[in-house]
Amino acid sequence: MSTKSDMVHASISLKPALDAIGKAMDQRFDRLLPVPADSRARLFEAMRHAAIGGGKRMRPLLVVAACDLFHVPRERALRVALAIECIHVYSLIHDDMPCMDDDDMRRGKPTVHKAFDEATAVLAGDSLHALAFEILADPATHEDPFARAELVTELAIASGPSGMAGGQMMDLVADDASYDLSGVTRLQQLKTGALIGFCLEAGAIMARVPDAQRTPLRGYARDLGLAFQIADDLLDVEGSADAAGKAVGKDAAAGKATFVSLLGVERARTQATMLIDQAIAHLHGFGEEGDLLRAIARFAIERDR
Amino acid sequence: MSTKSDMVHASISLKPALDAIGKAMDQRFDRLLPVPADSRARLFEAMRHAAIGGGKRMRPLLVVAACDLFHVPRERALRVALAIECIHVYSLIHDDMPCMDDDDMRRGKPTVHKAFDEATAVLAGDSLHALAFEILADPATHEDPFARAELVTELAIASGPSGMAGGQMMDLVADDASYDLSGVTRLQQLKTGALIGFCLEAGAIMARVPDAQRTPLRGYARDLGLAFQIADDLLDVEGSADAAGKAVGKDAAAGKATFVSLLGVERARTQATMLIDQAIAHLHGFGEEGDLLRAIARFAIERDR
Repeated sequence: MSTKSDMVHASISLKPALDAIGKAMDQRFDRLLPVPADSRARLFEAMRHAAIGGGKRMRPLLVVAACDLFHVPRERALRVALAIECIHVYSLIHDDMPCMDDDDMRRGKPTVHKAFDEATAVLAGDSLHALAFEILADPATHEDPFARAELVTELAIASGPSGMAGGQMMDLVADDASYDLSGVTRLQQLKTGALIGFCLEAGAIMARVPDAQRTPLRGYARDLGLAFQIADDLLDVEGSADAAGKAVGKDAAAGKATFVSLLGVERARTQATMLIDQAIAHLHGFGEEGDLLRAIARFAIERDR
Repeated sequence: MSTKSDMVHASISLKPALDAIGKAMDQRFDRLLPVPADSRARLFEAMRHAAIGGGKRMRPLLVVAACDLFHVPRERALRVALAIECIHVYSLIHDDMPCMDDDDMRRGKPTVHKAFDEATAVLAGDSLHALAFEILADPATHEDPFARAELVTELAIASGPSGMAGGQMMDLVADDASYDLSGVTRLQQLKTGALIGFCLEAGAIMARVPDAQRTPLRGYARDLGLAFQIADDLLDVEGSADAAGKAVGKDAAAGKATFVSLLGVERARTQATMLIDQAIAHLHGFGEEGDLLRAIARFAIERDR
């Protein structure tokens, strides 16, 4: 049964918010990465190539939406959003390399090692990695050094061997490991879920919300992350390379276990819908300040890329 | 003319300090990197391979020596030392990859991409990179969050595109850029000098020494860093692969400009000696608490690897 409140929330379109965060990230990356007049120019050009003008900016939008819950000033929220996007872009650059996923196209453009070379791709990724922490630790991000240090801790854990990098390793050995549903769930919770968790946690850290009050955000992040990944798996099976801006059908070709290969298309789709309902239910304690997070959750399974 | 004070200082042997820091780093890496009982095991094994049992541990020793100046508790100094070594080891793993320097041996062992594979090398480097910041931002490193945030800021800058990664990029394009002496100096100040600068700065940050009083440390770090690099260039020309634990003669073979190719062996050696005298002179305001830094400076140009 659809309540009046649900209908109001459903009417919010994500398009303006996505356009705005895309523009904001492009502007900030442009300012963050001025090309120096020395032989480091190529490094900065490679970072700009990867960071500017593309991607859904889903993680930055989640940071802004989570900060909105607690009325964090937008400029500060956008700094944290920029940091998480630095991490995301660095991981894409490294992940696309020939020794990893070996992808030629990303966000509709040649990948960094194609447009430049592999060595530059390694260094551009490493540089964006360092910049993420530089941004978070800056007093402009938060006047309270406790908040800055906590942001650094949480992002380091979410992106390191107990988070994203650990999940990427699990993915690398997937052929031998032949995961079941709980294995795939664990892999994805590390590989993509941990960073999504950071996006939500960041809102609470920025507002100095006590740990005990962060439970709904963690529930939302966990459910959204899994639903998002199932939707990705469905797009990999059903989507077009044009819409995705990258190669599709790779998981199936590699014989990797995914939510779709384990559940089938129909059950995977049902599961994603259920997870999104759950994610939204976690936000019941929030009023209209939670509408952006609700809209993101719905978008996660309705998008075509 | 050698004063009595000089003679006392000169009598300090670095050997016990090098042995102690090597042991301390190995112990701490062992605790930091327990191999998990899941398919991330390979990632942790690769990090352990690179991080444990090898290397001069020169940067950790510099951190401890700088912390000694201000009587920072040893356990805390060793945490910062571990963080900087995480960054150093990550940079070696990535730098050794086929697309970068393409080295098969490091610290007398096969490089990570040889012992494991390239993808694991990328992720092991990325993981150590994240761990460095996780260690610094932890309250166990310093009770004052200002100090933790400042450590993160300084390490991110020193290792990122305005520091180490930028210097590596300058090195990559060195064939085309054909640097003169000031170009090589700038390259090395970024590639290796920035991290050495962090080691000294870290002591001051840990002791909350005001910025204005850090000038001697910065002077010491700058002079030591250049002398260290000149000594490296001399070893690349004159040393043996056995002693170095890695391939030598590579710079000359690649036709890259180095301090030795630009100055010649004799002038390079004189310059290194002069820089070490200068580095030690910067410490004139310190008593015997500066002896370890003085001994490190002398060792920098006397070592055989």
